This record gives sequence, structure tokens and C-alpha cells, in this order.
Amino acid sequence: MSVITIERKVLEKNDQIAERNRRFFKERSIFVLNFVSSPGAGKTSILEKTFQELQGSMNIAVIEGDVQTDLDAQRVARYGVPVVQIVTLGGCHLEANLIQDALKNLDLNGVDALFIENVGNLVCPSNYDLGEAFKVVVLSTTEGDDKPLKYPAMFRNSSILIINKIDLVPYVRCNLSVLRNNALQINPALKVFEISCFTGAGIAEWCDWLRKKDVSGL
Amino acid sequence: MSVITIERKVLEKNDQIAERNRRFFKERSIFVLNFVSSPGAGKTSILEKTFQELQGSMNIAVIEGDVQTDLDAQRVARYGVPVVQIVTLGGCHLEANLIQDALKNLDLNGVDALFIENVGNLVCPSNYDLGEAFKVVVLSTTEGDDKPLKYPAMFRNSSILIINKIDLVPYVRCNLSVLRNNALQINPALKVFEISCFTGAGIAEWCDWLRKKDVSGL
Repeated sequence: MSVITIERKVLEKNDQIAERNRRFFKERSIFVLNFVSSPGAGKTSILEKTFQELQGSMNIAVIEGDVQTDLDAQRVARYGVPVVQIVTLGGCHLEANLIQDALKNLDLNGVDALFIENVGNLVCPSNYDLGEAFKVVVLSTTEGDDKPLKYPAMFRNSSILIINKIDLVPYVRCNLSVLRNNALQINPALKVFEISCFTGAGIAEWCDWLRKKDVSGL
Repeated sequence: MSVITIERKVLEKNDQIAERNRRFFKERSIFVLNFVSSPGAGKTSILEKTFQELQGSMNIAVIEGDVQTDLDAQRVARYGVPVVQIVTLGGCHLEANLIQDALKNLDLNGVDALFIENVGNLVCPSNYDLGEAFKVVVLSTTEGDDKPLKYPAMFRNSSILIINKIDLVPYVRCNLSVLRNNALQINPALKVFEISCFTGAGIAEWCDWLRKKDVSGL
């Protein structure tokens, strides 16, 4: 029995549970996004900005995934958002069964959208369906414009790309149009947002899209 | 047979090959460093700066590990350094047997040091010994000062921490002393360098250490 077979079995099992999660969300009309990125690309900061912008117009719950600590859940909880922290204790990605467990501890009454913040890892989470509507890949300008070519699976399996920290472009070696083109070369259907959590640029446009849930073309 | 058992067997097999690699390097007096970090933390830029600084005083060879593309090997090759690119085709970390294979294609004649640039991933490469003398974890200030607490295994299993992009501290939410303290809380024996590949700050100190290979206390 080869490791590849095991891996395939793990993925098949995961996909079955993910489909169950997806039905669960559909029955409750909850819009679920799975945020994936490298460590420090700004997933939690984007969540914070989004809560501020959507306060009163959209009820959001959060599942936080981290290798260790509940630092992110603490940050999110400050906004009065229902949140469950999953600590993977070394695990490099979230799996559908962990989401299933987390849902038992999350009050989804009146919730419109669920944001899942995956473990900071631009490789492994790409293969694991959690039952989300879409994967949102976040890339910081500080990571460089070549990253979509170097980590193509994540960009191929995501529907939305948020380019974060555009305020830092003058200080780093990152050409925004090269970055955008590299991403669209891997996945021409990507919906791209360019934002800065520091200056607030682009946040309104992103939140406007969230309010409308305009999923045409995705 | 559980997945955990398979994983343990994979690690045991890996460790055996890593020991073989280590003996190979020792017999040839080659100092081997395994560079690990998130995507875009600046591993390749550090290599480039190091080649420039050490030209004429130290002969370095490189093994590049990437999920996809040979962009990094192309960058490194410009410095006339012997380099082999490993493309993992989705694999999230390098393993000792891949290094063993790469060595067959690398001319190590007269080489003093071998730098292995691992796949950009702050989680998975932490468990895999490649036969290196030390793991060097690179963290960019743009990733935030909480990362050692959130990804402890990598900081625990590394001997050297290079904090990169210190020129960006004024523009990002990162307190250098908090970052340093968080890292030393996880691993008090870490040797810490603070550098900027952009301004060149700290590069001389890092290269001075490399020349002396002062491994006391590591």
C-alpha cells in the first residue's frame, strides 16, 4: 500500500464530509468563504476590516484555524463576532471534519456568512475542500509578484484573490500588474481585489461585493 | 493501519537517509544550511546577498526546492553558483531522498558550504531532516511579530533565525523586540540576525558568522 493511495483515501473521505458541510450551509443560506494564504499575508486583518465595514448590514461568524495559539480568535472576538478556534497542534491545513466539529460549538442563528480562516500555508490547504462556497486566496505585495507561478495550485483552486498591503508597493519589489497577470495566467476566472488594511483602500469595494454576493462568473 | 503510522514510517525512513546525507557532507567538510520560511520572506534574496558578500572567500553551492518553476534557480545561477532545482510538483516540503538525488547532479568540488532553499512553507518542512548542519528560519517583519508563537515547531527546530526586511519596520505592524522575544520564548538557543536585503543592513554580520562558522552554543 503506497502513501499515494492513503492520501487519495484521506482526500475522498474529506470530500464526502465537505459535501455534508456544504448541504448544511445551503439549508441555512449561509455564505461560506475559506480564506487561505501564507503566514502574515493579512487574513485576520481583512476579517477585522470587513466586520467594521459590514457591521449592522451582515451577520458574520468565524472559524479560526491555527497550528498553535488562539491569538486570532481573540482578535476576532473583540468585534462581538461568534468565533470558534481550531488548534491543529502542528497540522498544516484544516480538514472538513474539523469544520464539522467546530460547527457544533458555533451559534449560527441569524448568521449570513461564515468566514473560515485556514492555517497560514500557501501549499497544503489548496487540496482540502471544507464545504465552502469559495476559496479566497490572500497574497501580500511583500511576498513578491512571482508567487502565483510558484504556488499555482492555491491560485487555481481559489475563486477570489485579495492582493493585500498595496500601501507597501513603493517600498517592496512587487509590480502589481505583473502580480495580477501572473495570477490570471494560472486562473483566468479569478475575481481580484486590491486592498490595504492599513489605509483602508479597496475595503469598500470588497465589502460591497460581499453584500451583493455577486458570484456570477465564479 | 492508521495515517499516523504511515507518517511515522515516512519520517523514520527520511531520518535514515538524512543521516546518510549528513555523513556524506561531513566526509567532504561541507557546511550545510537548510533555509526555511513562508513564501516571500526573502530566502532567495538572502542567498543572493550572501553570494555577493562572500565572493572569493567561500565557495557555495545551492539546492533550490520549489512547488513549481525554476525561477529561484535562475536567479541563483546568475551568480555563477552551482545549483540544482528540485520541483516538488505540489509537494509541500523537501525530503532527504530528494537531496540525495540532487547531489548526483551537483559538482561539489571545492565547495565549502551548501545552501538548501526549502519550499516556502512555515509548517511542513519543520519535521524533515535533510542532513543539514542547521535549519535557518527566515521571518520577514511584514509577517508580524506573533509568528513564532503561531508556528512554534519551525522556530523550535531551527538553530538560526534571520529577521529580514527590517527596513520595512516603520511601515508595518511589527515590533522587533517583541518578535525577538517571542522567538526566544519558543527557542532560547536561537542565534538571531536582523537584516535587510534592500538596504544591506546586517548582511556583513551574517556573512562574518558564516565565514567563521561559529557554531558554539547552537
